[in-house]
Amino acid sequence: MNDIEPIAKLVNQLARLPGVGRKTAARLAYHIIALSEEEVRELAVSIFNGKKQVHFCPVCGDYTDTDPCKRCADPNRDRSILCVVKDPRDVAAMERMRDFNGMYHVLHGVISPMDGVGPDDIRIRELMTRLASGEVREVVLATNPDIEGEATAAYIARLVKPLMVKVTRIAHGVPVGGELEYTDEVTLSKAFENRREI
Amino acid sequence: MNDIEPIAKLVNQLARLPGVGRKTAARLAYHIIALSEEEVRELAVSIFNGKKQVHFCPVCGDYTDTDPCKRCADPNRDRSILCVVKDPRDVAAMERMRDFNGMYHVLHGVISPMDGVGPDDIRIRELMTRLASGEVREVVLATNPDIEGEATAAYIARLVKPLMVKVTRIAHGVPVGGELEYTDEVTLSKAFENRREI
Repeated sequence: MNDIEPIAKLVNQLARLPGVGRKTAARLAYHIIALSEEEVRELAVSIFNGKKQVHFCPVCGDYTDTDPCKRCADPNRDRSILCVVKDPRDVAAMERMRDFNGMYHVLHGVISPMDGVGPDDIRIRELMTRLASGEVREVVLATNPDIEGEATAAYIARLVKPLMVKVTRIAHGVPVGGELEYTDEVTLSKAFENRREI
Repeated sequence: MNDIEPIAKLVNQLARLPGVGRKTAARLAYHIIALSEEEVRELAVSIFNGKKQVHFCPVCGDYTDTDPCKRCADPNRDRSILCVVKDPRDVAAMERMRDFNGMYHVLHGVISPMDGVGPDDIRIRELMTRLASGEVREVVLATNPDIEGEATAAYIARLVKPLMVKVTRIAHGVPVGGELEYTDEVTLSKAFENRREI
């Protein structure tokens, strides 16, 4: 497409991003080349550091640049309630709604036999370990309201109930078949408020 | 939006790109963080090098990573015909059509009194210097068919004609594959005016 090698490379790299076609990639590339060197450095460094400095919190599994993450280290958060989500994006979505001040547990996936993902492939074992301390009194299952999300919630509920821990599921205020990540704060807030014990 | 600083920085940086809103930026950021370190390095380096290694060709003004650019250095290109365009994207567009084997001259803008851009702010002086060698026999004015593009073409035509160099303007008309019904009046008017006997 472009015969100047550094531009062609840049277009190729940008075109690999999700939702970015070759035309958009070319437009972005020309935009980037027209930026000041300082601006480009900031962009490149933010990408590099975004990857380099961010890792999974050993406690909750969310993305973090500290050990443990800010939320796991925050003494003002309620350690008696634990919200279980599929991935870090869902933590970000829950935090945007601002109604929840408990702890999180990121599963990094959901049980999906079709994709060969079983209970041992996601962070269920780590969840059970956390619950063993006896500090948690309620587990809110906030996996997506789709087949895998429901199955995962049901599976975890079965494991957790014998521990005499209250298990709740966020309400179906979240559009069925929708994804937490793309749910607006109000809907999410309602869904959280109407969580039911299961 | 995101309280993990490297992620927030990355989202902010990505959201500054044209056509990228905050939601898209967040989606891209999570995608980038989930890439391998090697892939992220490639992306960051391609952005950095895209800017660092690319500069303007001192002859034609197009983007290049060599001095002069490949096209200006290519002995197989026809030095007697010079195509004048607004910016490097237009060179890329002309090259995609594959019909033109002459040289280019990038103005880096068009005359636009509204935006405070006068003839001295774009590369017209450099164009006149190139023409002084007497090698060029035709100047094709390929600025956009908008008000500023037409005015710039007219201005350059007036300067070049006394040098006894042929000056041409790319034709305006209905786009190939386009439909009359959806063609704006000005274009249609131009197309009618420039009708040819067949």
